[in-house]
Amino acid sequence: MPHVLLTGFAPFGGESTNPSWEAVQALEGEVVAGHRIVARCLPVEFDASLHALQHALDELVPSLVICVGQAGGRAQMSLERVAINVIDARIPDNAGAQPIDEPVAADGPAAYFTSLPLKAMLAALRNAGFPAEISQTAGTYVCNHVFYALMHALRGLPGVRGGFVHIPYSPAQAALHAGAPSLPSTVVAQALRLAVGIALTVEHDVWMGGGATH
Amino acid sequence: MPHVLLTGFAPFGGESTNPSWEAVQALEGEVVAGHRIVARCLPVEFDASLHALQHALDELVPSLVICVGQAGGRAQMSLERVAINVIDARIPDNAGAQPIDEPVAADGPAAYFTSLPLKAMLAALRNAGFPAEISQTAGTYVCNHVFYALMHALRGLPGVRGGFVHIPYSPAQAALHAGAPSLPSTVVAQALRLAVGIALTVEHDVWMGGGATH
Amino acid sequence: MPHVLLTGFAPFGGESTNPSWEAVQALEGEVVAGHRIVARCLPVEFDASLHALQHALDELVPSLVICVGQAGGRAQMSLERVAINVIDARIPDNAGAQPIDEPVAADGPAAYFTSLPLKAMLAALRNAGFPAEISQTAGTYVCNHVFYALMHALRGLPGVRGGFVHIPYSPAQAALHAGAPSLPSTVVAQALRLAVGIALTVEHDVWMGGGATH
Amino acid sequence: MPHVLLTGFAPFGGESTNPSWEAVQALEGEVVAGHRIVARCLPVEFDASLHALQHALDELVPSLVICVGQAGGRAQMSLERVAINVIDARIPDNAGAQPIDEPVAADGPAAYFTSLPLKAMLAALRNAGFPAEISQTAGTYVCNHVFYALMHALRGLPGVRGGFVHIPYSPAQAALHAGAPSLPSTVVAQALRLAVGIALTVEHDVWMGGGATH
Repeated sequence: MPHVLLTGFAPFGGESTNPSWEAVQALEGEVVAGHRIVARCLPVEFDASLHALQHALDELVPSLVICVGQAGGRAQMSLERVAINVIDARIPDNAGAQPIDEPVAADGPAAYFTSLPLKAMLAALRNAGFPAEISQTAGTYVCNHVFYALMHALRGLPGVRGGFVHIPYSPAQAALHAGAPSLPSTVVAQALRLAVGIALTVEHDVWMGGGATH
Repeated sequence: MPHVLLTGFAPFGGESTNPSWEAVQALEGEVVAGHRIVARCLPVEFDASLHALQHALDELVPSLVICVGQAGGRAQMSLERVAINVIDARIPDNAGAQPIDEPVAADGPAAYFTSLPLKAMLAALRNAGFPAEISQTAGTYVCNHVFYALMHALRGLPGVRGGFVHIPYSPAQAALHAGAPSLPSTVVAQALRLAVGIALTVEHDVWMGGGATH
Repeated sequence: MPHVLLTGFAPFGGESTNPSWEAVQALEGEVVAGHRIVARCLPVEFDASLHALQHALDELVPSLVICVGQAGGRAQMSLERVAINVIDARIPDNAGAQPIDEPVAADGPAAYFTSLPLKAMLAALRNAGFPAEISQTAGTYVCNHVFYALMHALRGLPGVRGGFVHIPYSPAQAALHAGAPSLPSTVVAQALRLAVGIALTVEHDVWMGGGATH
Repeated sequence: MPHVLLTGFAPFGGESTNPSWEAVQALEGEVVAGHRIVARCLPVEFDASLHALQHALDELVPSLVICVGQAGGRAQMSLERVAINVIDARIPDNAGAQPIDEPVAADGPAAYFTSLPLKAMLAALRNAGFPAEISQTAGTYVCNHVFYALMHALRGLPGVRGGFVHIPYSPAQAALHAGAPSLPSTVVAQALRLAVGIALTVEHDVWMGGGATH
């Protein structure tokens, strides 16, 4: 049976958990539209994350890859539109590295757009009652780094869709961050299951606004 | 068995549901610390809400009253500190009334502080992983109106604690409000159960900061 | 000539300036509607601020008092509606005091409403192009403390109006707080001059919404 | 004398002014580091804006181009890092066009990075007391469209730097948008003058963080 690769991240930035990993782990082994979901946890390290990602891609040869990361402070699930070829780390990664204004891939283009049917996913999530939005930036930290590297790795494989989804804090994390929004990882897992199904079955993305005036 | 009165609200402002009612309704009939929870739904109408509240107070003679209302846009459960004696309605209530700069009670003081042990509730909620905060304003709409009227009604009953809790959108509501934070009503219900237990059993509130510089 | 007392605050919270003082100082000696403006700087200390305020009230016997304080993070000028009788200090004051859940005045009521014609001031400010809003909470720190104490001191003087206005960071302060909004103290001073004129000349406040649903 | 081209935009989105044009217009004719500033106003129309931009580039053959646009709701001056090759218009442009998920340039790459020394500009602005930040997205509307087209036009001209700066509402605009931050166009003009000088004289950008974790 073909594979879907879902990745989450290890905790970082002083957190003791990372709901991105909890959410994708909950889907491990599930079958969606004839594909088996495999969940992998990536380290929050610029170098090691790419090795772990490439290892999973080589081992599983997945039909679809969605990387999931935490965006503490965002209120909704963010379907990322574009990965940019830059690292500008506001805090050190878990290995202590903090590159500034360095490329993810020295030989890569300035950016890659996701190959997920983003608008179809957005419509399906909202219709099902999941708070979701299109995001025009995945930041410049490990999440964008992994997203860019994923699209760079998939550039020769036009049939394999890839993309990135940012998620809010979990309620338990938000309990430690006064005023911060949250979404339980159980809700995130349900939303991801739905998103995987759309990404596997919708051939042409729908025509629907999701932009930002700035 | 003595009663705890929990109130939620009917939908308003164009919403088709109100998670404040869903959350308290889920606790109907539960027994916490020797008290039975009774849940009541208040109309989002300045006049009718107070009649419904007074009716419930007269009928149940509760030992504890917590009114719950929705604060679309807030990210965490808000434990309200103070109710003020003013109505300044930004939108009409469900009966079409939109008073501006009128008192809730013509003969009442400018404000009432909650009689709930707010800091003990805050500490317990956070320790249990529920995102919560103290709020210094309940607004000037029906929620503050009901909160003020509750404290006005309880002023002669020193043994009966009362207060107000604002909650975020549900995820399904937030799916219709791009960028808005949410909290599932199931999570809210669990947090309220815990809060009720604290309010019934903690005699003296704890010493813990919960203020705002502005 | 009768006096208008405008107070600003000394720097606090790690800032090296306080635009509330810069703005009111710029108006020192100006004559508005037959009243001379006197500007005074209050210390950001719970005890000393009240002594300085009372001293100015005793000395000047002003016809109007507007205290101005900084609300770093707010985007517009905030006309405060209500002062509450509580101190809950999130950070120590400049003398190191950090009271929690203590009253401003042990013998005072729960709150005082401003006696300024808030809506007339709001309308005039907006019409003149100044970003302003009504605020339903002045916090629980020194600003609310001074505001409450002012209204407590004026309670026996029905002809003397008093109130509080919160202002944003200055641009130079915001340059040190990534993402924070600002308003130049020159703009604040112009807006305050206009607000003083309204407060001195408008007898009955206008009927205009300025509330919050929560 | 060589030229610096600064562009602002016409009003849009229901506004009657556009402070981006007010700010650059105020610098028209000024000489900075041996270059004369020329200010041009672009229409907020996907097609016409590019014609006007290209016309100005052909006529002036500038050494430096900074396009300035309004980002109502942002609190600080935003130095844009990257332009992406997509239009996803949330509202129609001033000619009624509202493209969704169309490229700016059918033959262009996914994105261009600015060629301005962004971090040197950021440091200089902050040191001079101007609130500024790096932005990782210029949106998907006319601003990003013009930014992308500018970098596409400059791709064969390595000695000519180009980029985009987003600015907040003016105070008078914010007076009509409750809660929105603002910055006077006079302050914006001063900041832009400083930024132009840095862009003309700093050869190698400085090493300084300006990223976002997400």
